Amino acid sequence: MCRLLAYIGKEVNLHALIYTPAHSIVKQSNQPREMRSGVVNADGFGVGWYKPEIEPAPAVFKSPMPIWSDLNLPSISRKITSPCVFVHVRGASAGMAIAQTNSHPFAKEKYLFMHNGVTENFRTAFMRVMRRQLLDEYYAGIEGTTDSEHVFALWLSNLHRENGKPGDMAECLLQTIDQMHTLAMQFNSQIVLNIALSDGETTLVTNFSTFPVAASLYFIENARAFPQAVLICSERLFDDPAWQPVPLNHYIRAGKDRQIECAPIKTSAPVRVAVAAPPALTEA
Amino acid sequence: MCRLLAYIGKEVNLHALIYTPAHSIVKQSNQPREMRSGVVNADGFGVGWYKPEIEPAPAVFKSPMPIWSDLNLPSISRKITSPCVFVHVRGASAGMAIAQTNSHPFAKEKYLFMHNGVTENFRTAFMRVMRRQLLDEYYAGIEGTTDSEHVFALWLSNLHRENGKPGDMAECLLQTIDQMHTLAMQFNSQIVLNIALSDGETTLVTNFSTFPVAASLYFIENARAFPQAVLICSERLFDDPAWQPVPLNHYIRAGKDRQIECAPIKTSAPVRVAVAAPPALTEA
Amino acid sequence: MCRLLAYIGKEVNLHALIYTPAHSIVKQSNQPREMRSGVVNADGFGVGWYKPEIEPAPAVFKSPMPIWSDLNLPSISRKITSPCVFVHVRGASAGMAIAQTNSHPFAKEKYLFMHNGVTENFRTAFMRVMRRQLLDEYYAGIEGTTDSEHVFALWLSNLHRENGKPGDMAECLLQTIDQMHTLAMQFNSQIVLNIALSDGETTLVTNFSTFPVAASLYFIENARAFPQAVLICSERLFDDPAWQPVPLNHYIRAGKDRQIECAPIKTSAPVRVAVAAPPALTEA
Amino acid sequence: MCRLLAYIGKEVNLHALIYTPAHSIVKQSNQPREMRSGVVNADGFGVGWYKPEIEPAPAVFKSPMPIWSDLNLPSISRKITSPCVFVHVRGASAGMAIAQTNSHPFAKEKYLFMHNGVTENFRTAFMRVMRRQLLDEYYAGIEGTTDSEHVFALWLSNLHRENGKPGDMAECLLQTIDQMHTLAMQFNSQIVLNIALSDGETTLVTNFSTFPVAASLYFIENARAFPQAVLICSERLFDDPAWQPVPLNHYIRAGKDRQIECAPIKTSAPVRVAVAAPPALTEA
Repeated sequence: MCRLLAYIGKEVNLHALIYTPAHSIVKQSNQPREMRSGVVNADGFGVGWYKPEIEPAPAVFKSPMPIWSDLNLPSISRKITSPCVFVHVRGASAGMAIAQTNSHPFAKEKYLFMHNGVTENFRTAFMRVMRRQLLDEYYAGIEGTTDSEHVFALWLSNLHRENGKPGDMAECLLQTIDQMHTLAMQFNSQIVLNIALSDGETTLVTNFSTFPVAASLYFIENARAFPQAVLICSERLFDDPAWQPVPLNHYIRAGKDRQIECAPIKTSAPVRVAVAAPPALTEA
Repeated sequence: MCRLLAYIGKEVNLHALIYTPAHSIVKQSNQPREMRSGVVNADGFGVGWYKPEIEPAPAVFKSPMPIWSDLNLPSISRKITSPCVFVHVRGASAGMAIAQTNSHPFAKEKYLFMHNGVTENFRTAFMRVMRRQLLDEYYAGIEGTTDSEHVFALWLSNLHRENGKPGDMAECLLQTIDQMHTLAMQFNSQIVLNIALSDGETTLVTNFSTFPVAASLYFIENARAFPQAVLICSERLFDDPAWQPVPLNHYIRAGKDRQIECAPIKTSAPVRVAVAAPPALTEA
Repeated sequence: MCRLLAYIGKEVNLHALIYTPAHSIVKQSNQPREMRSGVVNADGFGVGWYKPEIEPAPAVFKSPMPIWSDLNLPSISRKITSPCVFVHVRGASAGMAIAQTNSHPFAKEKYLFMHNGVTENFRTAFMRVMRRQLLDEYYAGIEGTTDSEHVFALWLSNLHRENGKPGDMAECLLQTIDQMHTLAMQFNSQIVLNIALSDGETTLVTNFSTFPVAASLYFIENARAFPQAVLICSERLFDDPAWQPVPLNHYIRAGKDRQIECAPIKTSAPVRVAVAAPPALTEA
Repeated sequence: MCRLLAYIGKEVNLHALIYTPAHSIVKQSNQPREMRSGVVNADGFGVGWYKPEIEPAPAVFKSPMPIWSDLNLPSISRKITSPCVFVHVRGASAGMAIAQTNSHPFAKEKYLFMHNGVTENFRTAFMRVMRRQLLDEYYAGIEGTTDSEHVFALWLSNLHRENGKPGDMAECLLQTIDQMHTLAMQFNSQIVLNIALSDGETTLVTNFSTFPVAASLYFIENARAFPQAVLICSERLFDDPAWQPVPLNHYIRAGKDRQIECAPIKTSAPVRVAVAAPPALTEA
């Protein structure tokens, strides 16, 4: 599995966000506490952030190395501030290629996307069917081999399916999850889709799983160390009773002005929950 | 463009093959003489070789770095010998990702494949149509984003189209080139397919182009420095009057016992040759 | 050799500085025009910049890969602005390790340092003697194996030789060059020291060589594309008659308010100039 | 800490040695069982091996990435056999650079060297004094920044201190450990020196520590899966009652004909053992 962290709110220093919390995302890469499978998240990392005063599209810095051994991030993060940040540390399974193009977050247009989860039988079953549903532009734009990047391309295709104005971010995300769930039933496969998605103004984070035990996901608002902001993270960054879990098969919507909504994820068929706990949630 | 080198014959030391010739493939990566476009071949490299006494499948060592700065190859190549070797140095265009998964040669089953050339409009036009023609196994097996790897997957699909015995290597290669040429006409795009393909026993190398000026390609047999062997290379490795160019739209077949054949590549429609010389053959 | 670029003046967007000039530093890495030796500068790169409103120490982003294939820099540079920037593309000789720790610029305290040049016989002659002259802190801080990093450590040791206040940046740089020249005479070796050094407020760039033909180095002030700034670069970034060469054995001092001084580099003994032009200025 | 594996005996296939044991060195990189500090060994790896029929010097393949994500080693190891093999997976501390030049094993002349352990205060205390004791050739040859490479250079200097014939491998190793122990007392620092050293004919492995609890180290002879060979490893590769621990402050000497000796490591002063268990044995 992977660990992810989304921040939205008041301008924050990236170094303070990534390195200083007691159980920082860097710690979570090396010594995670709530992993359902895997030991560490050492198969690459990435940071995405917005600078709206320059342009709407985000910046992305990614690497195939463990975040803890990167020499650039400790230096550059000190000099960067942003109101909307994504951080991801990857724990890939043995079969998935470790490559910069497979590190998260993925960026396209003004959107950032990252994923913690798994799609069982992705390459042998889902991939070909999913690609058929992609608009040419997003088909051609796929650079790596992860299920995650394909889910993002599917979302982008849903968003731009109608000519003219893009659709609603959240509606298209729910539609994408529904499509994935339909395929999962068809292929008799389990999926976990903890997805974070943003346009810099609004951040959506889902907690969706066909396993009875969800992947961990928490949020907090206006924490002492990070005032006037919302943090959503796979594991709690620091001790604070205000952290709340995102309920299974729900999603969070958070804006820059810190309004938060939590709503259920509805699928066209009832979520078919696996009987047993996940054996190896490590495909992403 | 790229530079490639194929060796077949008597067991050879890899270090002697890769580093010692006066105009070695390492030199060709840094100071090529016959490039139609680009300056150097610094966007990754790869070496593939056979050890038939161990198993039929080849070994592959690849990197996204320039061959001249690699610290492992000078050391390990000294201790490796093989009767059949592929070496490739990559010069990618600005738009193509530099990644280990995009370095050549590609290996699958007992086959090695590498490519010097270009497919104009590959991502926006060819890719989707080509993928439709792939058998599921080779569709799922694509790890990178190059036209080259897709051509290899198309060849593998042609080879295994009929259940049971695989088809003929050369026939399927000619079929693949014909399919690519048909698509090139359909998409009004130019292609260059200097392809090397081997199963360890027989090596095929094509010189195919819809441009009036072909990419350089030479072969030599039983050279003094490499007796009892056939060498096929984008540029001549050393001064020797015995080097011969592979004629445009022809291919070479060379076996371990050094029998060599050179035959024309026939396409179902006449090769539509571009009027002007290639402007930028650098997509591969 | 390498190519270097220093910018000081009005806040500049890093993407505009690095990618947009007609003969940008990225172009100079792939197709340099004024190299005395070597073909490309593909052995790593680095960018350093100041954000004085955050803290005096600079940020550094370095890589052992060619700048043209880096996927992070095009993205992150768009979102970064700075009043003082260093960019370096490295062309190392065959014997020198390609590693992130050997990429320039080097950063320590509030200083940035980069080097285009060579120290003949550095490892076998200079290194041991130079290290003896280092303060413990800078001795322990050396991370790589270049002559460049050792020259920086020597400068830092000169700067902090007296307890208390650091010495004068320029004086200590001239002292360092003098020490290197003395060693060069002692070891009968040629040196080229095109060094850029900054504390974010003042940038110094030297053009020092014991070869009769200096390495190329130019500066321009208040150029149309980069108003209210000074640019100093190994090759001219764009056509403009206002570019001026830095004379051999002179240095430039430029401040944020664009005052520029050009002064001769005096050494305790006359510079012993080599008779012939440099054969291979590629050790750095 | 790190994990290391040394093999000497009958020609072995590298893939069988590295990947197939139930608790293989690859498993030990991701899920070690007997680490005194650290979680994984993901900060680089290396493999060294001898091909005596080609030349006495070994081959080395190293990387700064986790061994489990390397795409080359699974392929090339299948085609390589050797009578003497070193494998190392590195777990570096936060402060030590992750770089290929810092991965083990180190090779020089006909020798391979690797280290599992720590030298407290290496950079601030030991390094400068150790370098003073090096012969020029080994001083100039240091490529990285680890204590390990410096210990190897010290051993090489001891070996070649007298002109003419090199000294005795084992004697010089004991001398090196004694020098390190003397410095450790002088600098009031703890050290752990689990060192493996070979010339392809004889392999020496030490278990030396000034901590009361040694780093784990085992050996086995003529195991069922690896007959006619000696294996020495930080953790037992498979279940077998024949594995024996190397006693603290002892070393093993094993030859190609599987003669094994185990002898105490004597130091000129009694080993000053730390009172408490090691807090963080992760500097190497």
